[in-house]
Amino acid sequence: MRGRGLKQEELLQTAIRVIRQHGYRDTSLQDIANEFQFTKPALYYYIRSKEELLYKIYDETITQALETLHTLIAEAAPPAERLRRVVSYFFELCMREDAMAIFFSEKSNLTPEHFEAITAKEREVVHLIRQLIEDGIQAGEWRLVDATAITFAILGMGAWTVHWFSPDGPLGQAELIEVYWDFIQRGMRPQNEGQH
Amino acid sequence: MRGRGLKQEELLQTAIRVIRQHGYRDTSLQDIANEFQFTKPALYYYIRSKEELLYKIYDETITQALETLHTLIAEAAPPAERLRRVVSYFFELCMREDAMAIFFSEKSNLTPEHFEAITAKEREVVHLIRQLIEDGIQAGEWRLVDATAITFAILGMGAWTVHWFSPDGPLGQAELIEVYWDFIQRGMRPQNEGQH
Repeated sequence: MRGRGLKQEELLQTAIRVIRQHGYRDTSLQDIANEFQFTKPALYYYIRSKEELLYKIYDETITQALETLHTLIAEAAPPAERLRRVVSYFFELCMREDAMAIFFSEKSNLTPEHFEAITAKEREVVHLIRQLIEDGIQAGEWRLVDATAITFAILGMGAWTVHWFSPDGPLGQAELIEVYWDFIQRGMRPQNEGQH
Repeated sequence: MRGRGLKQEELLQTAIRVIRQHGYRDTSLQDIANEFQFTKPALYYYIRSKEELLYKIYDETITQALETLHTLIAEAAPPAERLRRVVSYFFELCMREDAMAIFFSEKSNLTPEHFEAITAKEREVVHLIRQLIEDGIQAGEWRLVDATAITFAILGMGAWTVHWFSPDGPLGQAELIEVYWDFIQRGMRPQNEGQH
């Protein structure tokens, strides 16, 4: 048994890997403890319950994402270009991070309080992207699309990659981001803008 | 306790409603039995386990969807028009049927055999839509898009509606289908086609 000194980041990354592999339901705290050659009581020093661990994965993931979104949105660039950066970041996150596959499938296992806390942050993500689309419409960069519907279309496209995208497939991460951005920006482009 | 005479369709619809409300994990066969004022043993006449019930929901849902897809795809119309019908049907299904919300979130609760059986039918859905997109590219109706990526974009957009779309919201089902089809067909339209 190793003593104290486990970093939260290390604990979360290991938990993400194990839960991603076996699913939340079929993962026990003992499984996580085994990864560190801890006894279960030793693990309790770091975490009080399996649900707390799941919540930390959710909170860490969305808090970091929100921080990055705020940074990208504050950059000095036209709204359409900032949307491209935000969308690219989001898609990359979905394809790269195992935490995202958990994020999109295990939410019903959170306690009602934790569920609500995460939902509030999800609403903030939706709000930020929708606002960026609306700014682009105002600036004449996009046609008059329903910004809410398009925001959720983008989120759905990204979320769905966790079910099908494989880094070993014919399409790389960067290529898929390009394919999807091309699709999105054409879908939103103003009527009167020439094809190029 | 009511005797025999429960129709499978009635059983599935009730199970869908209860599971949609409480989640699969927090639904017991007793909960389902209660809906019919059955004892649990009486329910066993119709269904052997909770997992069998879940599998039947999955299988019924995707088998019906596949049947409709095959019908729509066989219709006498250009590929782009058939894609519009297929996509509209799929989006409508996602927004209308509680079974779809279960379909997109409880799959990990199936036994490995059932999981594989459903996955095979999901692959058929993907194959049908991708082929229809490829036919449209061949016919010059669409630009040279990555048909696999676009197929999954469409599936993700539809699947995501179960998380956010509400019939009481500002956008109706038919309107959202129109917004999304407009977005998709613009995203796929050939370069040299005039804006209209």
